[in-house]
Amino acid sequence: MKITVAKRAGFCFGVKRAVNIAFDMASRKDGVCTLGPIIHNPQLVKSLQDKGVHCVNEPHKDMKAVIIRTHGIPLQMNDKIVEMGIEVIDATCPFVKKAQQYAKLLREENYQVLILGESAHPEVKSIMSYVGQDVIIVEDEHMPERLKTRVGIVVQTTQPVSALKRLLNNIVERAKEIKIYNTICNSTALRLKETSEISGNVDIMIVAGGRNSANTTQLANHCRSMGVTTYHIETAMELDPLWFKGVNHVGVTAGASTPDWIIDEIIERINNIGGLTGNGST
Amino acid sequence: MKITVAKRAGFCFGVKRAVNIAFDMASRKDGVCTLGPIIHNPQLVKSLQDKGVHCVNEPHKDMKAVIIRTHGIPLQMNDKIVEMGIEVIDATCPFVKKAQQYAKLLREENYQVLILGESAHPEVKSIMSYVGQDVIIVEDEHMPERLKTRVGIVVQTTQPVSALKRLLNNIVERAKEIKIYNTICNSTALRLKETSEISGNVDIMIVAGGRNSANTTQLANHCRSMGVTTYHIETAMELDPLWFKGVNHVGVTAGASTPDWIIDEIIERINNIGGLTGNGST
Repeated sequence: MKITVAKRAGFCFGVKRAVNIAFDMASRKDGVCTLGPIIHNPQLVKSLQDKGVHCVNEPHKDMKAVIIRTHGIPLQMNDKIVEMGIEVIDATCPFVKKAQQYAKLLREENYQVLILGESAHPEVKSIMSYVGQDVIIVEDEHMPERLKTRVGIVVQTTQPVSALKRLLNNIVERAKEIKIYNTICNSTALRLKETSEISGNVDIMIVAGGRNSANTTQLANHCRSMGVTTYHIETAMELDPLWFKGVNHVGVTAGASTPDWIIDEIIERINNIGGLTGNGST
Repeated sequence: MKITVAKRAGFCFGVKRAVNIAFDMASRKDGVCTLGPIIHNPQLVKSLQDKGVHCVNEPHKDMKAVIIRTHGIPLQMNDKIVEMGIEVIDATCPFVKKAQQYAKLLREENYQVLILGESAHPEVKSIMSYVGQDVIIVEDEHMPERLKTRVGIVVQTTQPVSALKRLLNNIVERAKEIKIYNTICNSTALRLKETSEISGNVDIMIVAGGRNSANTTQLANHCRSMGVTTYHIETAMELDPLWFKGVNHVGVTAGASTPDWIIDEIIERINNIGGLTGNGST
């Protein structure tokens, strides 16, 4: 059984940076927490917890330091932490920070601000907080009904560019002035492109990453939309030997928040299954 | 034979305004010229000439006043006329003036300026002159090769919105920031929409207007792309009775620069042909 692993599977720049900051803090200081999961990967969050860095939902006066996760936090929450005298260690992805700043700028320039992304996602919530009232969140396929004359757009960093194209197609004849900050992270786009190429050449796709990870879920949905049988898993333990019956070629990809060791375990277990089922391995 | 005439056929706001200015000047002053045809309709230009307003290509010291046509003129030419002490009567369409000002603003804000339109069209040449160097003219289907990070777009007022959508689809993943002034004139878009609706219900389409008129040519091409037999004519004299053999329903539309009397003559002649061929008339 042949296995093709995406070269761009796993940690992106922003995730790598945040995880390094968190493990570094774990070894240097007690009483450090992350506000919400630092990245959308339950296994990594657990391993940080084992080192003493706990994930909490609200700041507490006994905390010494709070690590801001890759997706950022709402501005008001940041202010609250500072007021409580807790040290802020900012591990927000620099690309998310840019999206926050552009959203703020668009509001200052009096545009009606549209954020293209998932309204429940922490990144979108953090960007929203820089706009204040009147912000419109556009979830793909659900186009905004009422538009003002001057519209400004920022995009959740992990959105596919196809969603931005659909939004522009919909609004270009309804607004007189549109300013777009294409804040889609290049690494997300390239990972999606590579995953597309692999999907076209394999019998099944294994997509590794947190079920709460937007970009991993998007990768899995994209593979399915290409007609290939796709399994979205978090760990190697979930792999079922039955999936590989009669399969000659397996593709493996992973979201931006999936640690290398999880990808390595998955490849090892697929190789074992290949050996057991007599499909061979390359 | 049934005839359906587009309600929006003929003069738009900007053309009506310019033609009124020109005929008004003709009755009040000698030595008045237009720089280039005031609108893209040879018949109307001829009737203005009969009243003493001549169309010239270059300003001359003997002129008393120059009427600037609907499409505007390059900024440098305007300066030259002023320097020569000739009175400038500005009949530039207010929507074209907006496009000129937005192009200037985009350049001042350091955007790489793209003008979507026909490079040889006087309107595009007038808009270009407000940008200076480094402007890129994008003719539909010919996408720009090299883009900077920050791109600003204005559009020739008579372009179809579909061309703007194609341009955005092409460049949205290649630029980081895009500012669009959608300067497409609403009346052009509505005329195209109405023409589409009529085209779907008739046997042949007659499109009236100057052969040098961008928006009339666009109407005719659009009808053809919808699969209906289409004739682009300038005057009623060009109508050929053979076109109407076996035809039950004729659609008539006209560009923004086509005078009402030309449309009226065309309808009258189609009615006559219908009578001659025994197709009846409504």
